[in-house]
Amino acid sequence: LTRFIVETPEINGDTFVLVGEDAKHCNVLRLNVGDKVVICDGNGMDYQCIIENVSKSLVHLQIVNKVVCENEPFVNYSIYCAFPKGDKAEHIIQKVTELGAGSIYFFPSKYCVAKYNADNLTKKRERWQKIAREAAQQSQRGVVPTVDTFESFAEAIKHCAGSELSVFCYENESSTTINDVRNNAKTVSIITGSEGGFSEEEVEYARSSGCKIVTLGKRILRCETAPPAVLAAFTIGGL
Amino acid sequence: LTRFIVETPEINGDTFVLVGEDAKHCNVLRLNVGDKVVICDGNGMDYQCIIENVSKSLVHLQIVNKVVCENEPFVNYSIYCAFPKGDKAEHIIQKVTELGAGSIYFFPSKYCVAKYNADNLTKKRERWQKIAREAAQQSQRGVVPTVDTFESFAEAIKHCAGSELSVFCYENESSTTINDVRNNAKTVSIITGSEGGFSEEEVEYARSSGCKIVTLGKRILRCETAPPAVLAAFTIGGL
Repeated sequence: LTRFIVETPEINGDTFVLVGEDAKHCNVLRLNVGDKVVICDGNGMDYQCIIENVSKSLVHLQIVNKVVCENEPFVNYSIYCAFPKGDKAEHIIQKVTELGAGSIYFFPSKYCVAKYNADNLTKKRERWQKIAREAAQQSQRGVVPTVDTFESFAEAIKHCAGSELSVFCYENESSTTINDVRNNAKTVSIITGSEGGFSEEEVEYARSSGCKIVTLGKRILRCETAPPAVLAAFTIGGL
Repeated sequence: LTRFIVETPEINGDTFVLVGEDAKHCNVLRLNVGDKVVICDGNGMDYQCIIENVSKSLVHLQIVNKVVCENEPFVNYSIYCAFPKGDKAEHIIQKVTELGAGSIYFFPSKYCVAKYNADNLTKKRERWQKIAREAAQQSQRGVVPTVDTFESFAEAIKHCAGSELSVFCYENESSTTINDVRNNAKTVSIITGSEGGFSEEEVEYARSSGCKIVTLGKRILRCETAPPAVLAAFTIGGL
């Protein structure tokens, strides 16, 4: 079934109208009156629909059923990444969305070389949210992860403390692995560094805030490789 | 310590000369006589060296010790991917190399849309091998994975049969997970599809050849996301 994560989060009553790109997509797929589609609010709910009318710019739907989307993981995973250089944030957002992230955060850290400021962040956040939406739709998820930023390392770590398990990935940790700390937590935070890694002070701050400091093995992962790899270790390695 | 995976696989006697990019890199890092570096044959052996002489194009080394590189996984992972479109193969090669792949293979399958032929494959293989080398060096590995291709799906599956465990990832499999089939195998093959996925006939052929058909969960992964995700589930999720 064709599935649309709709831009308007409010789906009320028993009808809905697809517009813009979604309406165009219906036309491209030659969907017609009587065909079934699913619309999703991006917040975990799927609505099974039947097409009532199709024009080039509008597709009218009759909602016939509302169900919880079955494609979401049972654990809520939050990804925290130190600001990476270039367009690596986009790569991270796309990959961790496919792999089931619930939220994605970026934050500054001591060895970050990428320059982010309030001006360029507003535009970037918009683009990042769009990438999350597209990746969620493509991977048939029911939730579009929120993408947001923190103004400091300390703020990000403070926010992690709300999770039942916070996994802080550090290349100089040599013994504790993800399997050593994996438990039945229903909320898991995964924290990874930028190209320059973390400072010892940052690691100690994270440790004293309750984060579990873990190694990802002896090979050094690029900063954009680590977040999807760790999430996959949980969501695919833990299935 | 600065580490070079050298292009010439034969390292004999107690001296070695770095040339080309490697010599340039020594100059950039301002390495000097008496400094220590490690050279690696890309085949699992590390050679601890002391610099004897530096010029712009040549760096003479004295080899003082030969040790097995400690950064390699204990399991030999082979990655088999149906030919993907565009430059996705490059992305796959870089990521699975970082995550510890021993060999990387591409093969045609029924629903592949990418067009590969003997002419463009020769050039591509060269470029792919270069990407594997760079990723191996960057991630401080001791082995440069070999990158190669098969002429048919059947040939690729036949080759997998040499592994103790072959994991065939299929989006229509709903119950068997990686954890269900994970064992103490020392040679593991991971097989993933192209954008179009696999045909039922291909899945049955793989099953009858001894492959374990597994699900990667309810979210649909892009064809370039799956290989590193599955490898991470083994190498990071299994640590």
